[in-house]
Amino acid sequence: MPQLRKDPVTHEWVIIATERSRRPSDFAKSDDGPAKPAFSEKCAFCTGNESLTPPEVLAYRSSEVADSPGWWVRVVSNKFPALSIEGQLDRCGVGMYDYMNGVGAHEVIIETPEHNKCIGTVNHRQAVEILWACRQRMIDLSRDERFKYILLFRNHGKIAGASLEHPHSQMIALPMVPMDVMQEIRSVNQFYDYHDRCIFCDMIRQEQNFGKRVLDQNDEFIAFEPFAPQFPFETWILPKLHRASFIDESREQIEQFATILQRSLQRIAKCLNHPPYNYTLHMAPCNQERDAHPYFHWHLEIMPRLTIAAGFEMGTGVYINVTSPEDAAEHLRAVDLDCDKEQQESCQVAVAGKEPVH
Amino acid sequence: MPQLRKDPVTHEWVIIATERSRRPSDFAKSDDGPAKPAFSEKCAFCTGNESLTPPEVLAYRSSEVADSPGWWVRVVSNKFPALSIEGQLDRCGVGMYDYMNGVGAHEVIIETPEHNKCIGTVNHRQAVEILWACRQRMIDLSRDERFKYILLFRNHGKIAGASLEHPHSQMIALPMVPMDVMQEIRSVNQFYDYHDRCIFCDMIRQEQNFGKRVLDQNDEFIAFEPFAPQFPFETWILPKLHRASFIDESREQIEQFATILQRSLQRIAKCLNHPPYNYTLHMAPCNQERDAHPYFHWHLEIMPRLTIAAGFEMGTGVYINVTSPEDAAEHLRAVDLDCDKEQQESCQVAVAGKEPVH
Repeated sequence: MPQLRKDPVTHEWVIIATERSRRPSDFAKSDDGPAKPAFSEKCAFCTGNESLTPPEVLAYRSSEVADSPGWWVRVVSNKFPALSIEGQLDRCGVGMYDYMNGVGAHEVIIETPEHNKCIGTVNHRQAVEILWACRQRMIDLSRDERFKYILLFRNHGKIAGASLEHPHSQMIALPMVPMDVMQEIRSVNQFYDYHDRCIFCDMIRQEQNFGKRVLDQNDEFIAFEPFAPQFPFETWILPKLHRASFIDESREQIEQFATILQRSLQRIAKCLNHPPYNYTLHMAPCNQERDAHPYFHWHLEIMPRLTIAAGFEMGTGVYINVTSPEDAAEHLRAVDLDCDKEQQESCQVAVAGKEPVH
Repeated sequence: MPQLRKDPVTHEWVIIATERSRRPSDFAKSDDGPAKPAFSEKCAFCTGNESLTPPEVLAYRSSEVADSPGWWVRVVSNKFPALSIEGQLDRCGVGMYDYMNGVGAHEVIIETPEHNKCIGTVNHRQAVEILWACRQRMIDLSRDERFKYILLFRNHGKIAGASLEHPHSQMIALPMVPMDVMQEIRSVNQFYDYHDRCIFCDMIRQEQNFGKRVLDQNDEFIAFEPFAPQFPFETWILPKLHRASFIDESREQIEQFATILQRSLQRIAKCLNHPPYNYTLHMAPCNQERDAHPYFHWHLEIMPRLTIAAGFEMGTGVYINVTSPEDAAEHLRAVDLDCDKEQQESCQVAVAGKEPVH
């Protein structure tokens, strides 16, 4: 019989339709295999084509000349930004409706000069540099008081909305805190008011005890399949100790985060034949009253795009998921990773325990 | 400059990114053109193949033999249901998590015996019969006290999640009211508490006065592009007079609804080269305390699938829409409809007015 599960943070129900269950190999094959050239002449993000993008706002480079070759991570404004960096925030009503002008930032993090690599497949040092650049841009954007929320996200593959092939992430700074984020915050605060504990810290403890949904752990981070995933093989990565924002991570913590992120993406790629995916980084809003959201616990959500959200999901917000997170975790854990030996040693796969029944 | 607009009911912001604006012909062409056969031997929904589906729960037919040819609308249980009709609702907690067993109904409305028609292209009488069958199934399902919400939806085309080609809609009855629907209800009630008026009735009045987003009107219904659409060319149809549920519509009202629905779908098909789309019918929950939701105003939302929701939408719930609803309405109104003359006469295109500025 299908099962309904409630996400304790978003409060959304998810249908785990076990009768429709599919093995990893049953999902449609990706249009996004690894058969790409290392350099593409027409690609605006490849080395040598720096003049095809807006000027860089940040680059890690060996040469000192901006917008020239010699970089290993490069951040530019989006050429077709969803929001505009210029201008003051202006709000107005039109009859019963509410407008704001679209002030915000929309940046692109070009993750490597190599057209055919990505954050999951570059070497560990490069992955750390990418994430360090993201953190640096976040710190800078969060100083702009017009911005209330910053989202780092990645669209990988056409089906996941990537319009350009060259590996990149995106960052959008918004002049308001989105409803979905507000719901997460409300929920975290409610839980704290009631239990005097962080809901995500509790979740980590329950996942560690149960074990069957855990993929990976190192000293600082844990990766697991959430209890009520909207998508098959959805994977979350959280710092094990409570920290509200990605901005506060140290270099050492970013190094450990890069390790577990790369391992998770490699598991997904191997298990599901390089599927398209999105990931989004959830963190506390910025420019709120000081320490306004101490109870938030930052985390990354990876969502492989193996099925299509259709009328039912659009009409209710309830997702039908054909793979249980326990099955997904089992398949993902079984993947033989050939990453650095050093990484291997610093990670330990969880031991399965028992979930307490109320 | 891009614009942020807030949906007055869901309270979600939408980014109208005018700099990225595209003309209807710029959107990718559909994989779902009209070049299909009228009968497909292997199709479980074609006449003669009735044994390939679960037994019918309703059929409008000339012969009296169930599950045989001679029907014009046929409703069956989904062969791979997302929820199971058998069993009692059972809730339990597992540590901090909440489960329910997946009790519900999942039915398929086979809209016509003809493999290559759909609710937008069948004759008007057949469209009325389809919608009447939906209403009849809703009435029947709403008598089951285990069910709290019923969603009628349609997935048209592969990209919109239709796994079978033969024209069909689906109905799912849920044992709880989904979060998104609860948010709509809360919002409608808040507005009523404050203004003593229905928010949708106000919206209709403002759209009629402004005119530029209106596509069509007849005596009973209005079709317009909403102020803050998540999708390019998103179209809503509402009864002009306040009614909470589709279940209470009369035969005459369904006839007028069929007219405006068919005209809207034909406009979308002609303007955008037969795009994939979803539609969902929003109505008051069932089996609540008597008259629990008198302020709800039922409506249908049509969402063409022209762009891909990606990391940004998944991480914030805020959608980037590349076409303003005013532009979309202009393009859709310009479509030359060749539907029945009778229909043409009963519909009038709105006259553009002015939107009041606060």
